[in-house]
Amino acid sequence: MKLPLKGVIPPVVTPLLDNNTLDIKGLENLVEHLVTGGVHGLFILGTTGEATSLSNELRKEFIKRTCDLVNHRIPVMVGITDTSFDGSLEIAEFSQKAGADAVVVAPPYYIPISQTEMMDYLENLIPRLPLPMLLYNIPSYTKLHLAVKTVKAAKELGAIGIKDSSGDMLYLFTLIDEFKKAPDFSIITGTELFMPETILQGGHGAIGGGANMYPRLFVDLYEASVARDFEKITFLREKVMRLYNTIYSVGKTSSRYTKGINCALSAMGICNDYVAFPLRKFEGEDKKKIEQYILEFDGIMN
Amino acid sequence: MKLPLKGVIPPVVTPLLDNNTLDIKGLENLVEHLVTGGVHGLFILGTTGEATSLSNELRKEFIKRTCDLVNHRIPVMVGITDTSFDGSLEIAEFSQKAGADAVVVAPPYYIPISQTEMMDYLENLIPRLPLPMLLYNIPSYTKLHLAVKTVKAAKELGAIGIKDSSGDMLYLFTLIDEFKKAPDFSIITGTELFMPETILQGGHGAIGGGANMYPRLFVDLYEASVARDFEKITFLREKVMRLYNTIYSVGKTSSRYTKGINCALSAMGICNDYVAFPLRKFEGEDKKKIEQYILEFDGIMN
Amino acid sequence: MKLPLKGVIPPVVTPLLDNNTLDIKGLENLVEHLVTGGVHGLFILGTTGEATSLSNELRKEFIKRTCDLVNHRIPVMVGITDTSFDGSLEIAEFSQKAGADAVVVAPPYYIPISQTEMMDYLENLIPRLPLPMLLYNIPSYTKLHLAVKTVKAAKELGAIGIKDSSGDMLYLFTLIDEFKKAPDFSIITGTELFMPETILQGGHGAIGGGANMYPRLFVDLYEASVARDFEKITFLREKVMRLYNTIYSVGKTSSRYTKGINCALSAMGICNDYVAFPLRKFEGEDKKKIEQYILEFDGIMN
Amino acid sequence: MKLPLKGVIPPVVTPLLDNNTLDIKGLENLVEHLVTGGVHGLFILGTTGEATSLSNELRKEFIKRTCDLVNHRIPVMVGITDTSFDGSLEIAEFSQKAGADAVVVAPPYYIPISQTEMMDYLENLIPRLPLPMLLYNIPSYTKLHLAVKTVKAAKELGAIGIKDSSGDMLYLFTLIDEFKKAPDFSIITGTELFMPETILQGGHGAIGGGANMYPRLFVDLYEASVARDFEKITFLREKVMRLYNTIYSVGKTSSRYTKGINCALSAMGICNDYVAFPLRKFEGEDKKKIEQYILEFDGIMN
Repeated sequence: MKLPLKGVIPPVVTPLLDNNTLDIKGLENLVEHLVTGGVHGLFILGTTGEATSLSNELRKEFIKRTCDLVNHRIPVMVGITDTSFDGSLEIAEFSQKAGADAVVVAPPYYIPISQTEMMDYLENLIPRLPLPMLLYNIPSYTKLHLAVKTVKAAKELGAIGIKDSSGDMLYLFTLIDEFKKAPDFSIITGTELFMPETILQGGHGAIGGGANMYPRLFVDLYEASVARDFEKITFLREKVMRLYNTIYSVGKTSSRYTKGINCALSAMGICNDYVAFPLRKFEGEDKKKIEQYILEFDGIMN
Repeated sequence: MKLPLKGVIPPVVTPLLDNNTLDIKGLENLVEHLVTGGVHGLFILGTTGEATSLSNELRKEFIKRTCDLVNHRIPVMVGITDTSFDGSLEIAEFSQKAGADAVVVAPPYYIPISQTEMMDYLENLIPRLPLPMLLYNIPSYTKLHLAVKTVKAAKELGAIGIKDSSGDMLYLFTLIDEFKKAPDFSIITGTELFMPETILQGGHGAIGGGANMYPRLFVDLYEASVARDFEKITFLREKVMRLYNTIYSVGKTSSRYTKGINCALSAMGICNDYVAFPLRKFEGEDKKKIEQYILEFDGIMN
Repeated sequence: MKLPLKGVIPPVVTPLLDNNTLDIKGLENLVEHLVTGGVHGLFILGTTGEATSLSNELRKEFIKRTCDLVNHRIPVMVGITDTSFDGSLEIAEFSQKAGADAVVVAPPYYIPISQTEMMDYLENLIPRLPLPMLLYNIPSYTKLHLAVKTVKAAKELGAIGIKDSSGDMLYLFTLIDEFKKAPDFSIITGTELFMPETILQGGHGAIGGGANMYPRLFVDLYEASVARDFEKITFLREKVMRLYNTIYSVGKTSSRYTKGINCALSAMGICNDYVAFPLRKFEGEDKKKIEQYILEFDGIMN
Repeated sequence: MKLPLKGVIPPVVTPLLDNNTLDIKGLENLVEHLVTGGVHGLFILGTTGEATSLSNELRKEFIKRTCDLVNHRIPVMVGITDTSFDGSLEIAEFSQKAGADAVVVAPPYYIPISQTEMMDYLENLIPRLPLPMLLYNIPSYTKLHLAVKTVKAAKELGAIGIKDSSGDMLYLFTLIDEFKKAPDFSIITGTELFMPETILQGGHGAIGGGANMYPRLFVDLYEASVARDFEKITFLREKVMRLYNTIYSVGKTSSRYTKGINCALSAMGICNDYVAFPLRKFEGEDKKKIEQYILEFDGIMN
């Protein structure tokens, strides 16, 4: 895998038929949709991919099938965080055997921990990982906002980058500033809206759920950002903004982002919209709204 | 198992030699210490028991060994919550086969969910559980404060009680008030300090970590509360208060409660003090303080 | 004023005709209702009294009239906290001249401050106050949860007690424990539901809004708690619990407690129900519900 | 005043000799420093200006003197928010007489209120204001994050813009998107780091504390942003970033931003560094660090 990791890396949804069954045909469609859409890598088993809701067996099947379908055309990164240390290691080892390129590690997320505990955890974990690793900062889910010193410690231990889903742009810019002399360390935003700022400021890419639906739109926005083509950035970002005001705004639960993307992919005929417990897929009015948006966006978003 | 469940039910620590190895001799000591201490039941694999930090295999070994050691002298309840639906079911089924008496269910804890999603989850989960179940409310860890309507829905589905670790006494009293006409539904506080109020107000018991160390103290306090013996309640509660000001106050991380109890049990010669990742056991000054407290408490706390 | 301050001390609502006009007749009624109801003191210009919503002039008029009406039959305490240091001093000096007995001081509430800043503030403020002072802990409004060390520092500087409205009973019990060798320092709960526990544990009283409506109920509960008459405590507390499930549960905003009490007092014919900006009084369905509750409670609550 | 309001508008610090005395010479220096530095307006009595810590008299003196010193060379906006409705009106009326150009209104900040209560408040307040008004969104201080619908309602009532200090860039972009068809309504960021994004995305300016020290730096960055000169934006923003990593990072309290700017202005010989209660100015090591930074920045930042 070439470093630094960069570009558009969708946090791939996990197409499901039910709580325990992959939508295999849907997964095939989705992978082709994304690879032919030009994305630069895939991040599977993240928050959008409902990793924590899947059984271990299902996670493994998903890893294996995705790696096989991608077949090394682009890098595949796997979220491995489990609340148990050995659970994380096990998925990391499986990922390596399945042909994945890197793993992604967030803080264990049940017990609130300190920066020191996280550093100690990484000091023990990273040397035992069989693949390169990226950090994953998502404090609203893990209860820990990774301090810059923790990120620096992780880099010393071998981390190749960080995905930041804090939504805190000052933090993102601080990271970019802090690591500007380490050009192989990737700063990747997990807030798709911030992709242009991330790139313009010296960061490397975006892991944004919207790229599941419209990979080309995000790839174009990435390229416009790299080229510093401001007319185009403005034009394309307005489209991304529309996703926020439409698909991501349906429903009231905090998981509406995940549900909306799954529902949209189903409306686009790509894969099934089942979401695993404890979430429930959109039905009725919510579903109709998403379907209507997808119709309106036809030919516009990509 | 006789309903309502009541009395002192320690949230049993998991004695470990390292991340993957039970301290078997320590577990034997601990179980005998607790059963002969007079406690009314055991709750294993809760927050104090570091359930989420243990691998599935280790959890199962711990369940089996504990059930065997207890040998039906008192009821054993097992925390089964996993972020995956089937992961929770699997532990529930194993618990039933191992001879446990009930399971304890908190909201899946990675994705923040709504009351509606939790109710839907319980509607699907409870009918498939092979053992009676208690709810577990611990919002600082799970991100969801179970609404009274959610607790009522769970009761309709068959829940036999709730352990409330919110620390919110108004909520606790509201629960007691709400379910006073359902005498078989247990309201159990997870805040050991609130045991007298819980009992005096009409609740049923306490799941308090301090009972790992001083089971007799908590059993005496329970009995004094049932007997409404105020002199005794005041006398005994002052001792419980001392635990807060000593053992639970060492160190600065939010997990100091768990670490303190493990360290204290080691100082008492009951079991090893290893805590699993991402936590680290007390060392140095912190450890010495705990050892000193245990010396001071000798003959006083039990 | 006799120390320690103890008993039932209603946080008196401010009867208003509009944003700038006291309901003078209502205030007369209310003061008589409370004094003849047997309460042990009055706390005016607290959160329930909407102090921060009133102009300086109106606050002063209210202080003067209340002190005159009470005429030293019971102690009057005045909330003086202003975000400006001199604003607080000014109200303190006015209170002393008007005949008040003590002042109540919360942290200045706009800028989030540290314990050290609060201690420094008190070190400068307390020596300049012309009246004895109580601390006021209400972190959800002031952003600062007063640390025990801050309370101890305040006591050294001359504070005569603390009103704790944190709702955190562990904190309340810790305070009682900490100051049990300072019998003149009052620990007063601001959560009316906790009055029995406060008294039984060694604390001194309650500043509870419900005593505006039903002073006798709260005085009886206080006396039952002092007498450790458990039958009576249980019987009376169930009534207090009903207030929570009825009057305090109407509406959805976090200020429904204040609005509910004002509305109830109007339904009882005691004073007008206007609440100042930025709040709005209950109307329509909400008002009808309160009126219905007051009818139901007639002859029951007092 | 020409609409939309735009450009660099420092939230002016309040130069003080002590809690009740303006540093008049310092204020003269500061106003000249800012006006000759090219800023497009002044915002006085905001959070950085410690408005809530000043007595009413001092606020008025400060308004009058500042308006006189500026003498209509650039617009002056005054923060008027008081927890009491009439307190806010009084400052607004005084501001108009003193020659100010606009007022700035945040939610009353003691009692947590709802969007509906805020809308109702604005509906009553705005028609009575003698000057144009801007909204001020600063949820970490006021407890209310102004919903887009609340901002729209304010605009209908006559608001001429909003200063957003939420630090939430998605919200900021949503505002810009929402009001792009209302070119006279100003979207102004309160996070100085976000100025380029704000301008590039279609917003109007920044109210950033750093402009107190280095007005020219911020004016240059504004102009580079308007001109879409990316080389220059990158070059200048790195300097702003340095302020975050130096002056804004001294000390540990959440008010270090305010203290740091006051200390820096003193080190630059512009005005005194006193900050009013409940804050305390930097002393000792903290002060030395700031002085050192100011030396290092000489000739670099402007």
